[in-house]
Amino acid sequence: MGDQTNYHMTSDEFRRYGRAVIDWIADYYQSVEQLPVLSTVKPGEIRAALPPHPPAQGEPFEKILSDFQQIILPGITHWQSPNFYAFFPANTSGPSILGDLLSSGLGVQGMLWLTSPACTELETHVLDWLAEMLDLPEKFHSRSSGGGVIQDTASTAALTAMLAARERATAYASNETGLQERLVAYASSQAHSSIEKAVKIAGIGSQNLRLIPVDGRFAMRAEALARQIEEDRRAGLTPCFVGATVGTTSSNALDPLEEIGRICEREGVWLHVDAAMAGTAALCPEFRYIQTGLERADSYAFNPHKWMFTNFDCDCFFVADRAALIRTFSILPEYLRNQASETGAVIDYRDWHIQLGRRFRSLKLWFVIRHYGIEGLRYHIRSHVALAQEFAGWVDQSPRFELAAPAPLNLVCFRHRAGDDFNQRLLDRLNQSGQLYLTHTRLDDRMTLRMCIAQTHTERRHVEQAWNLIQQSAHELEMQA
Amino acid sequence: MGDQTNYHMTSDEFRRYGRAVIDWIADYYQSVEQLPVLSTVKPGEIRAALPPHPPAQGEPFEKILSDFQQIILPGITHWQSPNFYAFFPANTSGPSILGDLLSSGLGVQGMLWLTSPACTELETHVLDWLAEMLDLPEKFHSRSSGGGVIQDTASTAALTAMLAARERATAYASNETGLQERLVAYASSQAHSSIEKAVKIAGIGSQNLRLIPVDGRFAMRAEALARQIEEDRRAGLTPCFVGATVGTTSSNALDPLEEIGRICEREGVWLHVDAAMAGTAALCPEFRYIQTGLERADSYAFNPHKWMFTNFDCDCFFVADRAALIRTFSILPEYLRNQASETGAVIDYRDWHIQLGRRFRSLKLWFVIRHYGIEGLRYHIRSHVALAQEFAGWVDQSPRFELAAPAPLNLVCFRHRAGDDFNQRLLDRLNQSGQLYLTHTRLDDRMTLRMCIAQTHTERRHVEQAWNLIQQSAHELEMQA
Repeated sequence: MGDQTNYHMTSDEFRRYGRAVIDWIADYYQSVEQLPVLSTVKPGEIRAALPPHPPAQGEPFEKILSDFQQIILPGITHWQSPNFYAFFPANTSGPSILGDLLSSGLGVQGMLWLTSPACTELETHVLDWLAEMLDLPEKFHSRSSGGGVIQDTASTAALTAMLAARERATAYASNETGLQERLVAYASSQAHSSIEKAVKIAGIGSQNLRLIPVDGRFAMRAEALARQIEEDRRAGLTPCFVGATVGTTSSNALDPLEEIGRICEREGVWLHVDAAMAGTAALCPEFRYIQTGLERADSYAFNPHKWMFTNFDCDCFFVADRAALIRTFSILPEYLRNQASETGAVIDYRDWHIQLGRRFRSLKLWFVIRHYGIEGLRYHIRSHVALAQEFAGWVDQSPRFELAAPAPLNLVCFRHRAGDDFNQRLLDRLNQSGQLYLTHTRLDDRMTLRMCIAQTHTERRHVEQAWNLIQQSAHELEMQA
Repeated sequence: MGDQTNYHMTSDEFRRYGRAVIDWIADYYQSVEQLPVLSTVKPGEIRAALPPHPPAQGEPFEKILSDFQQIILPGITHWQSPNFYAFFPANTSGPSILGDLLSSGLGVQGMLWLTSPACTELETHVLDWLAEMLDLPEKFHSRSSGGGVIQDTASTAALTAMLAARERATAYASNETGLQERLVAYASSQAHSSIEKAVKIAGIGSQNLRLIPVDGRFAMRAEALARQIEEDRRAGLTPCFVGATVGTTSSNALDPLEEIGRICEREGVWLHVDAAMAGTAALCPEFRYIQTGLERADSYAFNPHKWMFTNFDCDCFFVADRAALIRTFSILPEYLRNQASETGAVIDYRDWHIQLGRRFRSLKLWFVIRHYGIEGLRYHIRSHVALAQEFAGWVDQSPRFELAAPAPLNLVCFRHRAGDDFNQRLLDRLNQSGQLYLTHTRLDDRMTLRMCIAQTHTERRHVEQAWNLIQQSAHELEMQA
């Protein structure tokens, strides 16, 4: 902060405006549930309200805040509303926001251990804590052969794993020679689109991604995977990567890690497990069955920014063999050389991912874990799962609705029995009401509504209200038909 | 925020602790220049101070803040100290921190226009503002064929450009078939390590990256590039990407964009221009010569998180042909389909980059531009350049030091005349003093000190103090010899 003559915000101004922003956020969380969840602006409306040219002179902060309120807020889809049930959530919480604020204030860039030892060491430490909290296999712990690192998203984690898999499968030659072998990657037909994006980026090509069929629970059929790998080997191709999912985006399906893992071990194929949302459930011993077989995986990712009340972005990516990862990503130009790195006594996380620079993201995660404690986190996971189970029960007992998939945890897939068009109209009507926000998918080629109960502030009354609105809207549409 | 019984931080607590954190940050900026710039902790020291196991029960926020102060702070290398001259900076400012705080509070995830129209439209708008502020070629403006998007880092921007280049060079087939042609990429021997990382990730391979020699000013020799492309064509290879730099990391060298651009146009090769730090200088008309020839580029990136007082991460990536980018990155699973996207009336930024999810990063950038205005930003850029020029003059006039490279803007490369060992000892001594933080590089295979004058709060007195300390430390070392 500076003095008045140099354009910087002064220390006093920062304190004053900082309080105003903190109060604004507190007020926002107290009123967000009254706002229409899905923004109702039309394309171009926000831009039209903004001045076409940037300001030549600085403007008062009061004016900026007031424009934020008047222009930006109507264009917000409220991910922090307790009535947000769309996609997977992207949750915040008080301690996370404040941890992130301190990270912004410190403004450190942790590319090397040296450029802020605490940024690296807290990250390693908190990811080891998480390995313990989730009861992950020992090999993912930094005291063993592996360790954890924060990535931005599960998409990036999947790409990172695939690149390490590509290198391992080509004896670490592709990085140098370019990709020359024809490699093959595998995931279930229900896997996230990030796997397809990753095979494209890695140069493997989407034609060499095999989408393995799923069973009646939308989980990968392990025997079909085994057959496909065998077939590809016979064709002279090199299987290199399997992406398994714990909690698919469409329906929270759980791939059978144990069987998939045995196949991968036998075939020497890298197994990456994406548990982006559902992974957090393993905080509770009663839900740990979802990761049975994880000890056979080479890498694992889950996102505290989804269901663990930690601001986006925060994906925790664990590898069993950190040497494979570092060998894939390490680059050492002169201007980054330093004694601490050369002794090998420290971790330099820039060798663990695509980017060089990195924010101090473990701070918000540390704040969340300490504020809630394991007990507080479990309390919310259990509440969300219980609410989803209750909601699934209501659907199941309703004559007009049906469950479209098993609901093992906190995502309920359901549909009205009247078919695709009706469900589309129902979805549009619900979302236009502003009282909740749901999204859809297709399961068994049928339009399916997804109700993901995982927002930080969702309580029983919100879910009950949602169910009432869904029933009432369906009734109104039925009357129109 | 919740009530007392559900473990969430209450609204009152958030307001109270939020103020404490805001005050902490304000105090920090008032005292940061007294702290040792480079952290003095030893490897493992931070971890040793942290409890080995995560807390079962939640802890009071006061305790968390106090541990932050006691344990974390000593492990911080102070990037926000006015005495930070290392690498390139990663600057913050008051308006940026508060814009980022609002973004954390809103917690929106802007993968689609629909998931917060303001997150997308403000980003397009502010990047158009920047195109105007920097006088970028019309084609990078969203009203033309191109447009801008915020990426995390210049590394990711280079990779993104290279992937689009790879696809364009292979008629958009590599994404599907995998990379089958042998492609070649080019950059100068002084280019950032991210280019090498990108050719590896993209499957092109580091053997197919040609490091083109530089001239006496460490800028790419365009005629050598032309010759190399010709040679590669004769060998049956496919040139696909040239990475040119405006302000190299080692010495702020400026590649000749005009000549390089002509070659790329003639050869149909994608030209990406990385101006990570130096690009901000183009806010001032008198420095716009650095981007002469940019109208021949296919993509351009610069980082407001370096020299434009906007919190890391914030890289602005512009493309001339957005269709090429979208064709490279677009994936459309059912659960992301929506009417707004299908009309084509909106931008969905998830098709413009590797990740799917994205934060609301344009908010901090908007706050910075509005708070400072073009005038305020120019004031600081001009001050930094003037200080660097003054520092370069002192070096030049000193009998014991010499300039190691031209210093066109705000980075001064210099060395003591006594050779590599002496300069290494000088660097260690300076950094151990805690009074400043410098880093090094090698130029003409000689150890070179880098003094990058670009930190938000660096003023003349800091630079003067630094030069006095450098002279004094050199004198003391000379006495020991």
